[in-house]
Amino acid sequence: MSVPEQLASYRASIDNIDAALVHLLAERFKITQAVGRFKAEAGLDASDPGREDEQIARLRALAEESGLDPGFTESFLRFIVSEVIRHHEAIAREQ
Amino acid sequence: MSVPEQLASYRASIDNIDAALVHLLAERFKITQAVGRFKAEAGLDASDPGREDEQIARLRALAEESGLDPGFTESFLRFIVSEVIRHHEAIAREQ
Repeated sequence: MSVPEQLASYRASIDNIDAALVHLLAERFKITQAVGRFKAEAGLDASDPGREDEQIARLRALAEESGLDPGFTESFLRFIVSEVIRHHEAIAREQ
Repeated sequence: MSVPEQLASYRASIDNIDAALVHLLAERFKITQAVGRFKAEAGLDASDPGREDEQIARLRALAEESGLDPGFTESFLRFIVSEVIRHHEAIAREQ
């Protein structure tokens, strides 16, 4: 393969993975939106630091198994959770 | 279902999705590491703004189709790409 062909092949694989990531994230936010409405109706706090600590510990372990940087994985989860909390606070304000 | 049972059920689904996300990210970084080595050997720049613009446009469209916030999706891609560029620069320094 030429240099442009090899690069295009790598990029096609990255694009396939990114499409899968977007669809999984869409599904994850559908669930966390449902959790947000459920927590607001049940009078529970939007954030739960104990749950976040458990998620981080679990994902760091999964990252190590799969060859991903655990530090990056923790930053990734915090990035997603900060978006989820923003949604939950918006839902709580609407109640 | 009681409130704790319903919450536990939602969380089990989120944990399944997060495990899938971690494994997909591990695979994505394996490919981008290969791209980093390939670019360094071919003497290509680590970053490619034209490629990033194309990825962002494509993922924003996929996000809209799947009900995900396109702005969040763009931030998500930039978050991942900044990690990839950090890896590529480290690889280029090793050459």
